[in-house]
Amino acid sequence: MTKVMNVAMIGGGFMGKAHAMAYASMPMFFWPAPAIPHRKVVVDVTDGMAEEARERYGFEEASSDWRAVVNRPDIDVVDICTPNNVHAEIAIEAAKAGKHIICEKPLARTVEEARAMRDAAKAAGIFHMVAFNYRRTPAVALARKYIEEGRIGRILNFRGTYLQDWSADPDSPLSWRFQKKIAGSGSVGDIATHVVDLAHYLVGPIAEVNALTTTYNKTRPLQQGGIDKLGAAEKATDAERGEVDVDDEVVSMLKFEGGAIGSLEATRNAYGRNNFITLEIHGTKGSIHFNYERRDELQVMFADDPGDARGFRTIYTGPAHPYGNGLWPIPGLGIGYSETKIVECYDFFSAIVKNRQPSPNFEDGLLTELVADALIRSGETGQWEKVG
Amino acid sequence: MTKVMNVAMIGGGFMGKAHAMAYASMPMFFWPAPAIPHRKVVVDVTDGMAEEARERYGFEEASSDWRAVVNRPDIDVVDICTPNNVHAEIAIEAAKAGKHIICEKPLARTVEEARAMRDAAKAAGIFHMVAFNYRRTPAVALARKYIEEGRIGRILNFRGTYLQDWSADPDSPLSWRFQKKIAGSGSVGDIATHVVDLAHYLVGPIAEVNALTTTYNKTRPLQQGGIDKLGAAEKATDAERGEVDVDDEVVSMLKFEGGAIGSLEATRNAYGRNNFITLEIHGTKGSIHFNYERRDELQVMFADDPGDARGFRTIYTGPAHPYGNGLWPIPGLGIGYSETKIVECYDFFSAIVKNRQPSPNFEDGLLTELVADALIRSGETGQWEKVG
Amino acid sequence: MTKVMNVAMIGGGFMGKAHAMAYASMPMFFWPAPAIPHRKVVVDVTDGMAEEARERYGFEEASSDWRAVVNRPDIDVVDICTPNNVHAEIAIEAAKAGKHIICEKPLARTVEEARAMRDAAKAAGIFHMVAFNYRRTPAVALARKYIEEGRIGRILNFRGTYLQDWSADPDSPLSWRFQKKIAGSGSVGDIATHVVDLAHYLVGPIAEVNALTTTYNKTRPLQQGGIDKLGAAEKATDAERGEVDVDDEVVSMLKFEGGAIGSLEATRNAYGRNNFITLEIHGTKGSIHFNYERRDELQVMFADDPGDARGFRTIYTGPAHPYGNGLWPIPGLGIGYSETKIVECYDFFSAIVKNRQPSPNFEDGLLTELVADALIRSGETGQWEKVG
Amino acid sequence: MTKVMNVAMIGGGFMGKAHAMAYASMPMFFWPAPAIPHRKVVVDVTDGMAEEARERYGFEEASSDWRAVVNRPDIDVVDICTPNNVHAEIAIEAAKAGKHIICEKPLARTVEEARAMRDAAKAAGIFHMVAFNYRRTPAVALARKYIEEGRIGRILNFRGTYLQDWSADPDSPLSWRFQKKIAGSGSVGDIATHVVDLAHYLVGPIAEVNALTTTYNKTRPLQQGGIDKLGAAEKATDAERGEVDVDDEVVSMLKFEGGAIGSLEATRNAYGRNNFITLEIHGTKGSIHFNYERRDELQVMFADDPGDARGFRTIYTGPAHPYGNGLWPIPGLGIGYSETKIVECYDFFSAIVKNRQPSPNFEDGLLTELVADALIRSGETGQWEKVG
Repeated sequence: MTKVMNVAMIGGGFMGKAHAMAYASMPMFFWPAPAIPHRKVVVDVTDGMAEEARERYGFEEASSDWRAVVNRPDIDVVDICTPNNVHAEIAIEAAKAGKHIICEKPLARTVEEARAMRDAAKAAGIFHMVAFNYRRTPAVALARKYIEEGRIGRILNFRGTYLQDWSADPDSPLSWRFQKKIAGSGSVGDIATHVVDLAHYLVGPIAEVNALTTTYNKTRPLQQGGIDKLGAAEKATDAERGEVDVDDEVVSMLKFEGGAIGSLEATRNAYGRNNFITLEIHGTKGSIHFNYERRDELQVMFADDPGDARGFRTIYTGPAHPYGNGLWPIPGLGIGYSETKIVECYDFFSAIVKNRQPSPNFEDGLLTELVADALIRSGETGQWEKVG
Repeated sequence: MTKVMNVAMIGGGFMGKAHAMAYASMPMFFWPAPAIPHRKVVVDVTDGMAEEARERYGFEEASSDWRAVVNRPDIDVVDICTPNNVHAEIAIEAAKAGKHIICEKPLARTVEEARAMRDAAKAAGIFHMVAFNYRRTPAVALARKYIEEGRIGRILNFRGTYLQDWSADPDSPLSWRFQKKIAGSGSVGDIATHVVDLAHYLVGPIAEVNALTTTYNKTRPLQQGGIDKLGAAEKATDAERGEVDVDDEVVSMLKFEGGAIGSLEATRNAYGRNNFITLEIHGTKGSIHFNYERRDELQVMFADDPGDARGFRTIYTGPAHPYGNGLWPIPGLGIGYSETKIVECYDFFSAIVKNRQPSPNFEDGLLTELVADALIRSGETGQWEKVG
Repeated sequence: MTKVMNVAMIGGGFMGKAHAMAYASMPMFFWPAPAIPHRKVVVDVTDGMAEEARERYGFEEASSDWRAVVNRPDIDVVDICTPNNVHAEIAIEAAKAGKHIICEKPLARTVEEARAMRDAAKAAGIFHMVAFNYRRTPAVALARKYIEEGRIGRILNFRGTYLQDWSADPDSPLSWRFQKKIAGSGSVGDIATHVVDLAHYLVGPIAEVNALTTTYNKTRPLQQGGIDKLGAAEKATDAERGEVDVDDEVVSMLKFEGGAIGSLEATRNAYGRNNFITLEIHGTKGSIHFNYERRDELQVMFADDPGDARGFRTIYTGPAHPYGNGLWPIPGLGIGYSETKIVECYDFFSAIVKNRQPSPNFEDGLLTELVADALIRSGETGQWEKVG
Repeated sequence: MTKVMNVAMIGGGFMGKAHAMAYASMPMFFWPAPAIPHRKVVVDVTDGMAEEARERYGFEEASSDWRAVVNRPDIDVVDICTPNNVHAEIAIEAAKAGKHIICEKPLARTVEEARAMRDAAKAAGIFHMVAFNYRRTPAVALARKYIEEGRIGRILNFRGTYLQDWSADPDSPLSWRFQKKIAGSGSVGDIATHVVDLAHYLVGPIAEVNALTTTYNKTRPLQQGGIDKLGAAEKATDAERGEVDVDDEVVSMLKFEGGAIGSLEATRNAYGRNNFITLEIHGTKGSIHFNYERRDELQVMFADDPGDARGFRTIYTGPAHPYGNGLWPIPGLGIGYSETKIVECYDFFSAIVKNRQPSPNFEDGLLTELVADALIRSGETGQWEKVG
């Protein structure tokens, strides 16, 4: 029988849904499974919300007391799906209780919080992961494989974007994502960190940044209830408005420790771009292009192809590619957000049962926070800023 | 509390995995859920296989005796995920036992089987569905919405393809999909029926066909164990070979009852095409294009757009589109095969609790079989053949 | 000094413009040029029109008497850019006069005309070409190169379309292209023949067809003046209407002499498709895809690529590809309609100076007419019809 | 009769070819033509080269003495198609002689040269143009039209790239484009200036830049003969190597005078990118995307489209768009490099005969040089640098 591990999930919103689906589905896909995650307890703000989440997400128990839950001896894994402002408190408590932790991204609001989380996790000797799920896309993992095998050569250049428009309308609500005290930062923490994580995964550590940050929409309608509905939120043109105190766009140049240069851009004001995460990497032996909106595909160009047949190949990922043994038996059947979260879940439990630290872990998450911090600093100084 | 319905799933292969994932995930996505499908019993060929499927797919019980299971009083829904050759027998038994049925496509090997299934289901007064999941893709449902709202005008033309290459290599194994006695037919039943279902969904009934069928690879290596691994199967160049007695390509012209004309093509020999289901529909007021390999997107052109701004729009489906309330909060987060199956599950249980026949049901499935039969007949006669 | 050859061009419309540009530009691109085409005389319907064409297109002389012109001893080449109804008469006269001929496509209105033209040309021992320019696109020529070198293997399947919408609006004018007595046929002769020519070029002779033809728009506003403005014509909702007596859509299945099967479709009612000529070819070793709307690119897939790097390559044509020595020094600088016509002009004069029959010549043009004729017959009989 | 203007073209390389084609073709396309450019004299380095250029490009006379030619009374227009190092000298002489001038881009090697040219032109009261042809692409002109009509709203963001790979191979030759004394700069002057010109055309003046410049390939094989063959050059792995003293990549952040921000990147080391000029512009009412490698198309998204039909439209330019009256009668027939140069020629002569300064003229070209200069300065200082 496969080992069963009890999960306590804190937070029942958009991310709770994604994680619950992954717990249920992971062993169905990756079999034999590293472990069977058991949906033991779900925690939400009120008892009523928690009970609803329990029924909806198929957990055994519900609670509104996260502290009690993370200290229960029968819990093996704590899953933090809350807004950013309570990541640190919960994670540190869970670490002290000796639980393995998977925490939604970004790891924290600030470098200080992230460092405290990392320290607590390290001290506790637990396994820990930050849920940057986009690197779990098979096409991104394939890009990493090509790079590791030297098929792209030495990397010269990285170009990453994360463009969205769900809040481009100035009358879309002031969710917690626009409030510094909850989110820590705006487009930097929420979406640019995904690009930073991908850059770290594929190219290596970023050493210096030189950034431009801005806030186009300086007020937004106050949102009743505080639920984070992203693009599914109603416009509220008549509501009272509150201040946006975070950035909604960041552009930056990058210098990598390994010598490559590059750029990143993240914005929530790009009408027509939905979840437009793109990567382009140029090396001495070829190039890679990826667009998450067409995530079944990786584009790769090998410079040593015959002269009359050189060009980007469009590779649809499937059984011949990373995670292909667990996902679908034909390329093009379809990689969705679900599949990325199922892979994430698989990698997390695989690492635990193999007694290896998952990746990206809190150390990696801290590095990403250091880059985010440098981006914000550089946005203020207008200078190149070193990471860390 | 949401109503819980007990599911017995027969078959633990590729489709069993997809269905089990959907049962677990559907209420997480569509909440309040129409019902909570409880994974009660899974049936596979041997007790060992069934027990493994139970653990893997999170069912409560396992069995190798489907007949006993479908007659259990505590079962509400029977889910048929087996190869085609036992669809009829199981479905008829389940119908007699008064269970609602979801059956994988194609409904049956022959028109006769399909008719018997339809008759049994009708006589039993149950709800029944054929699992043509591609019409559950939000982009396809959006196409239907545009058409129903008259935004494309009267439909003149339909062009559909289903191109694959997982068995283009003559040395890929002789799975049951290449054996008439199990599959009924080849590319016609396995993949062309998907296109027929989409044509029926979007345009209406096909009245006549004129087809060309062929079999390029007339033998294939015998497969040990019989597991259906599709594109994940190993090549077996040295193995003994068996005969392929089904078609591997069909091209057809179509006449629809409503006056539109069109074409369909399905082949397993299209190197570089993986799960290339494409639809193009031209109407008197616009056009629609869809490619399942980029299933987050629908392309639509409205002829009455301003003269200097006419062209196909690439719509990424999200909250503003069909099923958007249940799926992800931003377009482009990702529709995968999982999401199509979750939507299918939602539509099935929604219909049951609303006391309505789901669609496509066995009546629709029979119509699709009638078209498949006409395609095969026409492939033999070289003539226009009427459907039914 | 490069040999100068005197050209008499009959017809000063859309095609006259394209040909005149090619005469002027060909030696600029392909140098040393096979010959320098001298724009000697242009002929149009009236003296006034001819004089305007002379000035506009840079010819030395103007005339409204094509018969006199084609019999002038100083003319080397006759270029027929008129509507289809006078192709035969002019070509036969020019052949008798011993002139080399380039004739716009389709070669003629009927098989009889085409045969008479072929016979006259053959009897006269001249060089002759039909201006199917799309096969001059470097990407199409590259496809042919791959096929000839065996890199795609044996061809199994061909799928070709030519979709347009410039006359999808029922109120776009009744140009000569909708009148049988001038055009011979509708979408069959005007656009399907392009696909037939490409099929012949890439796959080989078509042996049998089984077609469906239709006319959606049965009347159109009478056009004043008769000028053929295609998509640049004004809508005329109030004008008196005349009958359309040709097809505006054809769908057909194809059997090739070499054993491949396939399909073609040509329509003028495909809203959103402008000049959407697509080809897809599947062979035993790979596949090719081409879309003229993105004509700088050829897509090719080689089945023997490594398992983790298989997919269509997008090749931008340039110096490493056919005609690369004459066109632009970097791929992606841009292949337009101009470039296809310049290449056509180069191939025509190259053949003449090398004392070789150009391709496609009147023999090839006749074969294409035979296919067109079979398409129309099959559209009437609903049966497979042999070509020829 | 249309006015005929005599052109003296200096330089018979890649650009000479493109310009000669445009002179011959422009009246064929845009009729009535603003003027008929007469190919009077072509100048090249030696008499032999000039004579060959004369025959090839269809000029009346040849010369190796540009100074004599530009002072001839019968010359109306001087066209400078030489490498960058002699732009200034020729332009100033031609201006003094009172000739209208069209000069290839970039205007000059340095700001000082550009300023001198601007001053000379202004003093002489001539008409003058810099040949930034990419803004002549109909799709780019359409983008400008949308912006001018307010359909995109206030512009927030500009993102431009120019990625090439023709010299990504370290063994491709050391053409003049890699030598500061001839070219002035590398990727900045040669390709980034195109992006700057497009940014100025669509968004307005750039106020400040913050750039990163680098040179990956610091030596290259010496090229015999000095001819500039770009991607058509042979690799020379054994040749003696010379120093590259210019940049081959630039990344920059941008601040526009109007408040928008943005980025640009230009590199010659992007394997798989050929002539990859992309623009993306986000406004308060929509977005625009353009990729020159698919130059027939403009992508535009209007934020006020209905909620269920929002997305980028792919507009194929044709008769309904800028320059549509002169180019081809159907969208998708094909815009190539030729067509952009024909449009450029049309705009140049149109301005002259309408007694208006063309755009971009030497004043605009100087502004672009000022941005180029700021990019290079910023690449050295690592700071934000003001333009001018």
